Amino acid sequence: MWFIRDQKCRNRSLICIAMQSYLHGKPYKRMSLVTQFNEYRGKMNERIMESDSLIIKRIFNLDTNAYQEGALDVKSKELIGLTCSLVLRCDDCVKYHLGKCKEVGFTTGEVHEAMGVATLIGGTIVIPHLRRAFEYWDDLQK
Amino acid sequence: MWFIRDQKCRNRSLICIAMQSYLHGKPYKRMSLVTQFNEYRGKMNERIMESDSLIIKRIFNLDTNAYQEGALDVKSKELIGLTCSLVLRCDDCVKYHLGKCKEVGFTTGEVHEAMGVATLIGGTIVIPHLRRAFEYWDDLQK
Amino acid sequence: MWFIRDQKCRNRSLICIAMQSYLHGKPYKRMSLVTQFNEYRGKMNERIMESDSLIIKRIFNLDTNAYQEGALDVKSKELIGLTCSLVLRCDDCVKYHLGKCKEVGFTTGEVHEAMGVATLIGGTIVIPHLRRAFEYWDDLQK
Amino acid sequence: MWFIRDQKCRNRSLICIAMQSYLHGKPYKRMSLVTQFNEYRGKMNERIMESDSLIIKRIFNLDTNAYQEGALDVKSKELIGLTCSLVLRCDDCVKYHLGKCKEVGFTTGEVHEAMGVATLIGGTIVIPHLRRAFEYWDDLQK
Amino acid sequence: MWFIRDQKCRNRSLICIAMQSYLHGKPYKRMSLVTQFNEYRGKMNERIMESDSLIIKRIFNLDTNAYQEGALDVKSKELIGLTCSLVLRCDDCVKYHLGKCKEVGFTTGEVHEAMGVATLIGGTIVIPHLRRAFEYWDDLQK
Amino acid sequence: MWFIRDQKCRNRSLICIAMQSYLHGKPYKRMSLVTQFNEYRGKMNERIMESDSLIIKRIFNLDTNAYQEGALDVKSKELIGLTCSLVLRCDDCVKYHLGKCKEVGFTTGEVHEAMGVATLIGGTIVIPHLRRAFEYWDDLQK
Repeated sequence: MWFIRDQKCRNRSLICIAMQSYLHGKPYKRMSLVTQFNEYRGKMNERIMESDSLIIKRIFNLDTNAYQEGALDVKSKELIGLTCSLVLRCDDCVKYHLGKCKEVGFTTGEVHEAMGVATLIGGTIVIPHLRRAFEYWDDLQK
Repeated sequence: MWFIRDQKCRNRSLICIAMQSYLHGKPYKRMSLVTQFNEYRGKMNERIMESDSLIIKRIFNLDTNAYQEGALDVKSKELIGLTCSLVLRCDDCVKYHLGKCKEVGFTTGEVHEAMGVATLIGGTIVIPHLRRAFEYWDDLQK
Repeated sequence: MWFIRDQKCRNRSLICIAMQSYLHGKPYKRMSLVTQFNEYRGKMNERIMESDSLIIKRIFNLDTNAYQEGALDVKSKELIGLTCSLVLRCDDCVKYHLGKCKEVGFTTGEVHEAMGVATLIGGTIVIPHLRRAFEYWDDLQK
Repeated sequence: MWFIRDQKCRNRSLICIAMQSYLHGKPYKRMSLVTQFNEYRGKMNERIMESDSLIIKRIFNLDTNAYQEGALDVKSKELIGLTCSLVLRCDDCVKYHLGKCKEVGFTTGEVHEAMGVATLIGGTIVIPHLRRAFEYWDDLQK
Repeated sequence: MWFIRDQKCRNRSLICIAMQSYLHGKPYKRMSLVTQFNEYRGKMNERIMESDSLIIKRIFNLDTNAYQEGALDVKSKELIGLTCSLVLRCDDCVKYHLGKCKEVGFTTGEVHEAMGVATLIGGTIVIPHLRRAFEYWDDLQK
Repeated sequence: MWFIRDQKCRNRSLICIAMQSYLHGKPYKRMSLVTQFNEYRGKMNERIMESDSLIIKRIFNLDTNAYQEGALDVKSKELIGLTCSLVLRCDDCVKYHLGKCKEVGFTTGEVHEAMGVATLIGGTIVIPHLRRAFEYWDDLQK
């Protein structure tokens, strides 16, 4: 038995499954970008929370609370999370908030327009991140 | 007759008026942060639009259109504008969107909370910009 | 039949071809970084242009026009595009402009020097992006 | 009676005192950069803590605790605070941490070298902030 | 005798001269943005070079050499310096390179277009810096 | 004979070894993140130093010298390198300095706390980079 593990956990399962499918004739079903992202995020968040760093734990705790309803509703906060992540060009943050935007009921038209405004604010340097964001949003619809 | 003009136009009128008030006993009325910002912004936008740069003109034009109602309403777009400006730590952009946020009817509680989420996303490095944003928002209420 | 697809499309074809080569003894020819970049960029740009986001479409349109000859010639504009992309540490933007720099006739010495100035401006934090830029430029020469 | 107040509170007292000194022949004693910074910071932090934003209050609270002794001693943490502020090019953050660095006993040679490493990491774009940091550190010695 | 000194040296001389002009009826001649920038930069660079920081001295030395003719000519290098400074939103760096761009013979049309491309790359967040850059360039023509 | 080469060299050897292990029943031993990082970094640094770019060579040389003992000891300098890399969100720079932090004797508790302070300064946008940093530090302990 063997096991592949790479830096971003992206390809591990894909390759195993693909090789097994190929060799054994089993049908191949790819792991979506969404599953890959969630798995790595979940695993590493668990690892971080096991650590002894009080500062990090408090930041994580505050991060969870901050997006709950307050003076602003949950949708407004996710819109902030998505667009700030995009102008700061953080692909993983964008993915996380795209997932949340879907959960709280944003339409594709709304998400695309929000990302358009963010691209205008952040400049054409944002475009490569926009490509990956479009791809991830499409995956979320499947 | 004399005239003071400084880099950011901040103090010019203040000083003239203050000196005249002091010397002549006239009552002094300060120019608010809001007026100072709007005057400089207006003057320089005019100067830029007089130039021959087609690219800049098209960016300005697109910037104006982008914040109009579309798939998202105007309030959502101003929320994006405010928070993206804050995480990118652009004081003048924050001021502009604070002015717009007031125009479109955001309450102080909503604006403070939005800026809180942005500070969490952007880190404590945002705090000095948050101070100036609070001061400007307070000035907008006067 | 099976199909591997990963987040950045980097390894998909490589793995398929490699496995087929290995199992069937066919000679293997790798897909260059250049082809990988162009394929993903092309596919996703098409996807984005299919969307209903007017803001994004206008940004893309402006982006195309901005690099055409004007007061500055095309080479000067690509130099701006390359170095601004590098100081902003956007690997995909750097790749795109390296491709263009080759098209418009920059030599390796000129490209390396431009990237040196950009690294000085942006600091040692730029160095990992410089490594990938050197690798991509070398691939463009093949 | 009159009163000058400008955006950054920098010049208010200076001008009043200067005008009074000039007109009345009183000796003038300037307000140092240090006093100006601390006054504005203190005033606005108080204003922010009066607000109803729970997220901001928790960030401020966490910020205070994070720099206390833990696995790392206080000096190491201030070194982190100073250099991260400098590479992120936040003048006010740099000023705050320079004040703290003096309090916890860093020498001028140590502070200059730390800022040198930060300038190398962040690039020549940091130099204008380095100038202001040198000036502020010199003021702290007075 | 009195003396005003503020953080950025911007207003010191202005105010002194203005008050003296006003009180004594002497004609007032303002200090340009260009002179203010060059004076502060010169003074602080001297202060930094007096220090014992070898790293900083080597960065300054490298910075001077990097913009001399090499594989690229001096004009190309100043174009890189100007636009990278603008996308990184460093007002003082932009001012420095605008001064150099004038020295090496760039026209207003060329400078405006270069700044247009940079604004497109860096986004609307660059616009406040573009306003100050236009003002400074205009001052350089006087 | 075949050969897989991808952009970041991450998976090349992994896949070859995995396929060979699978097909031939050999036990599989993965290449660690640490080895992958060091191999690519070493190869590309060599490539860059072969080039004719004097500016880049001088930056590399200065980078090597800057982290040697001076007014600050080597541990303080690595702490600066690690945290500045993290707030600037450069994964490869973080990896490099994590490797150095281990060499100079930092404990896991110290490294986690330093990264906690950096995350507070840089905001939640740093968290995805923190995940990868935790994973890499864990790999360094193996």
